[in-house]
Amino acid sequence: MDGANSRDRELRQRAEAVIPGGMYGHQAVGLLPDDYPQFFEKGEGAHIWDADGRRYLDFMCAYGPNLFGYANPQIDAAYVRQLGLGDTLTGPTALMVEMAEAMVGMVSHAAWAMFCKNGTDATSMALTIARAHTRKKTVIRAKGAYHGAAAWCTPRPTGVIETDRAHQIFCDYNDVASLEEAVRQAGDDLACIFAAPFKHDAFIDQAEPDLAYARRVREICDQTGALLIVDDVRAGLRLARDCSWSKIGVQPDLSSWGKCIANGHPISALLGAEKARKAAAAIYVTGSFWYQAAPMAAGLETLRLVRDTDYLERITALGERLRGGLAERSKAAGFALRQTGPVTMPLFLFDDDPDLRKGFCFSSEMLARGVYVHPWHNMFLCAAMTEADIDGALDAAEGAFGVLKRNVRDLAPVEKLAFLSAGAR
Amino acid sequence: MDGANSRDRELRQRAEAVIPGGMYGHQAVGLLPDDYPQFFEKGEGAHIWDADGRRYLDFMCAYGPNLFGYANPQIDAAYVRQLGLGDTLTGPTALMVEMAEAMVGMVSHAAWAMFCKNGTDATSMALTIARAHTRKKTVIRAKGAYHGAAAWCTPRPTGVIETDRAHQIFCDYNDVASLEEAVRQAGDDLACIFAAPFKHDAFIDQAEPDLAYARRVREICDQTGALLIVDDVRAGLRLARDCSWSKIGVQPDLSSWGKCIANGHPISALLGAEKARKAAAAIYVTGSFWYQAAPMAAGLETLRLVRDTDYLERITALGERLRGGLAERSKAAGFALRQTGPVTMPLFLFDDDPDLRKGFCFSSEMLARGVYVHPWHNMFLCAAMTEADIDGALDAAEGAFGVLKRNVRDLAPVEKLAFLSAGAR
Repeated sequence: MDGANSRDRELRQRAEAVIPGGMYGHQAVGLLPDDYPQFFEKGEGAHIWDADGRRYLDFMCAYGPNLFGYANPQIDAAYVRQLGLGDTLTGPTALMVEMAEAMVGMVSHAAWAMFCKNGTDATSMALTIARAHTRKKTVIRAKGAYHGAAAWCTPRPTGVIETDRAHQIFCDYNDVASLEEAVRQAGDDLACIFAAPFKHDAFIDQAEPDLAYARRVREICDQTGALLIVDDVRAGLRLARDCSWSKIGVQPDLSSWGKCIANGHPISALLGAEKARKAAAAIYVTGSFWYQAAPMAAGLETLRLVRDTDYLERITALGERLRGGLAERSKAAGFALRQTGPVTMPLFLFDDDPDLRKGFCFSSEMLARGVYVHPWHNMFLCAAMTEADIDGALDAAEGAFGVLKRNVRDLAPVEKLAFLSAGAR
Repeated sequence: MDGANSRDRELRQRAEAVIPGGMYGHQAVGLLPDDYPQFFEKGEGAHIWDADGRRYLDFMCAYGPNLFGYANPQIDAAYVRQLGLGDTLTGPTALMVEMAEAMVGMVSHAAWAMFCKNGTDATSMALTIARAHTRKKTVIRAKGAYHGAAAWCTPRPTGVIETDRAHQIFCDYNDVASLEEAVRQAGDDLACIFAAPFKHDAFIDQAEPDLAYARRVREICDQTGALLIVDDVRAGLRLARDCSWSKIGVQPDLSSWGKCIANGHPISALLGAEKARKAAAAIYVTGSFWYQAAPMAAGLETLRLVRDTDYLERITALGERLRGGLAERSKAAGFALRQTGPVTMPLFLFDDDPDLRKGFCFSSEMLARGVYVHPWHNMFLCAAMTEADIDGALDAAEGAFGVLKRNVRDLAPVEKLAFLSAGAR
C-alpha cells in the first residue's frame, strides 16, 4: 500500500501548509477511515479516480451534484457552448428567464425562482423572505437537520455567536408533539418552519417523512401565516420530478434547490409560491456569479434530461437492486445491516456498532475493491450507474462482509468517532 | 428606438412572471436610466452585446470579474480542459492545493487560503474566524461600505432582524476620530475591523485610503488582538499584484477575494495570516461547489497572467488616458465632472447633480454611442481594452457632453433616485 497513495500523501502535506487543517468542509476526510483518499483527479460517468489513479464506483456522487454522470457529454457541451458566447457578464442572459420558467414549470408549488450559488444561499434567502413576508422572527427547525453552513445554521458553531442563532426553536423531526410544543413556544412570532424532505442527518438512521407530521406542519403554517420551507438541496430530483414532498401531497411555500440541478455546475435556487413573491422581491441578495449563463445552460439541459428520460425510474430500480442485494449478502454473512432512507439516497449502519468500527472496516474493504461508500453520511445513486455496476458493488460487498466476519472481534476502536459513543451527537 | 429593444422588452415581461420583481441583486437595472438593457447575450474581450444584438464597450466588466477580457481564450481553455477531466467531484483535486499555493505566493500577508463561491462567503468566513480567534464579538466597519449581501451586511436589510446585526459598530472611513470612538465603544470585545481597500461606496465620490487611518486601524488591531480584514473582493488585482493595502504598506490579517481571481469563473477566497490559521481550521464552512476544479484551473491561468504580463501597468495607463481625456472634454463642454477612485476603477459624478439627472443623461448618451458606463457605481477597466477603445469612448463622451449641454436646463428629474436628494443615503 505504501507507494500506492504516495501522490495523495504528498498533496496532503502541501495542503497542510497552505489550507487551514489541510482541508475543510464536507469533503475533508478527517472523519473517514484512514485509507480514504483526500484528493481526486478525474470523474467520468459513475466513476472517480483518486490522485494516485485508482478508480472507484462512486456512491457519493460528489455529495449529490452528480445525477447524470460525471462529465456528462450533453450537459457539459451545453456549458461549454454558452461559455463561448458569454458567462459572467454585466447582466443576465435569456437563459436566466428560461431556467426560471423550466423550474417553475417542473415544481408544482412554485410561481417564481431566484438563482444563487450555494445551497446555503438558498436556505438563507428562504429565512430572510419568510421574515420579510411575515414580519415575524422565529424559525422552527428539526434538531440535527442540515440546512447549510452559514452562521445561523452551521452544524459546528465555532466562531458563531449567540445572536446569530437567536429566534430559533428546535423540534424532533417526525414528532408532532415536539413540533406543537415548538409552535407553542414561538407564540405569535412564527416566521417559518424548515423541513428536510426526509430525515437525512449524518451518523444515524435516515427516516421517511411521517405523513401526519408533514400535514401538521402545513396546517400550522396555514393557521399562523408562517411559511413552510422544504429544503430540497440534497434530495431534490432524486425522489421526484417535483418538490420531494409532492410525493406525499404536501406543498411548501418555499423550496431550496442546488447540488444536481445543473449536474454539478455551480447553481442553486430558491423557488416560491405566489404569496411569497412580494417579500422575495423586497429583500436584497446577490453574488458576483449568480447570473452566470453557462451553469444555466447546463441546468436547462439537466432539466431536459429530468423531463425526457426515465432516469428516476432507473436510479430507483438500481437502488432497490443494491438494497436487496446488500440485505441478502449481509444476512448470509451474519450481520444486521440497517439500510435506511430512499433507495436512491441510501445509508448503511451496522447494529451494535456505536463507534462505527464495523462500518469503517466494511467501507475500507469496499474501497479496496474499487467501490467508494460512506460509513455515516447518506449516499447518492446516479443515472450513469448500470446493473453491472451494482452487481459489481454487491460482489465487493460479499468480499467486504467476509473480511469483516473474520476480523470483527479484533477491530480497533475508531478513536476519531469516539464522540458518537460518548453521546455527543 | 421602438423595435430596437424588442427582445429585451419581451424578456423583461417573461422575467416579471417567474422572477420576483423581474430581476434582483446588483445586476437589476431598476436604478439605471430606462434605456439601459436588462438582458445580454454575448461577451468578447472588452465588449458585451445586449439581447437585441447591440454592442458596447463595457466599463462595468461584469461588476469586476472581467479582468483579462470576456471569453479569454487561454483562461477558458484551462477551464474547459479541466471540465473534461473532473470538476465537481467527491473531493478536491491537486488544483486546490496549487491555487492556494499560488495565492499565498502572491499575497504578502497570507500564509493560507480557503476557497468559496461568493464574495459574501469570504467576508462572512472572515467575521466568523475573527470571532473564533479572539473569542470576542464586536465588529467595526465603515458606514456605507459594501461587504456582501448576507443578513449581517446586506445594504437593504428587508427581512433582516436586529440580532443579525448585533455587535456591529460603524465608523466613518478615513476618519481616525470616528474609528477611535468606535473602538472605545467596543471596549474589550473587539473581534475585528473591516476595511475596504479604498472608499468605493455607491452614489458618492470614491476616496483613496488615508494613510494615517490605515495605520491606526493596524495599530488598534495589534494593540487589542482584533483581526484586520481588508475586503479586496471588488478591488483585488486592479490596484496591485498583492493585497491592495500592500501599496500603502499596511498588511491585514485576513483578506477576502473574488470577482476576477478566475476572470469570471466562479471562485472566491479568504486569505489569512499565520496567527489566524488555527481559528480558520476550527470553523465549519462549506458549499456544494466550493471544491470545483475547473474554476481553480481558470484561476491558476488568471494568476499566471497576473504574474507574467504587464496587465496592471496597461490598465493603469488606459485609466489615466480615460481620466485625462474626460477631464479635458468635460471642461471644454463646461461641466465639472468629478472623477474619483483609482483610475482602473473610476467613478464619474457631475457637480450640482443631486438626483443624477446629468449623470443619467450623460450615461444614456454614452450607451447610445456604444459605451456602457454606470452613473453611480464605480466602473472597472480590463486588460482587453485598447487605447483605441479609450479614444472611442472619449469621442463618445464628446458627443454625450454636447447633448447634455444642449439639454441640461430641461432635464427631467430622476424620480427613481429622488431618495438621493432627500438625503436617504
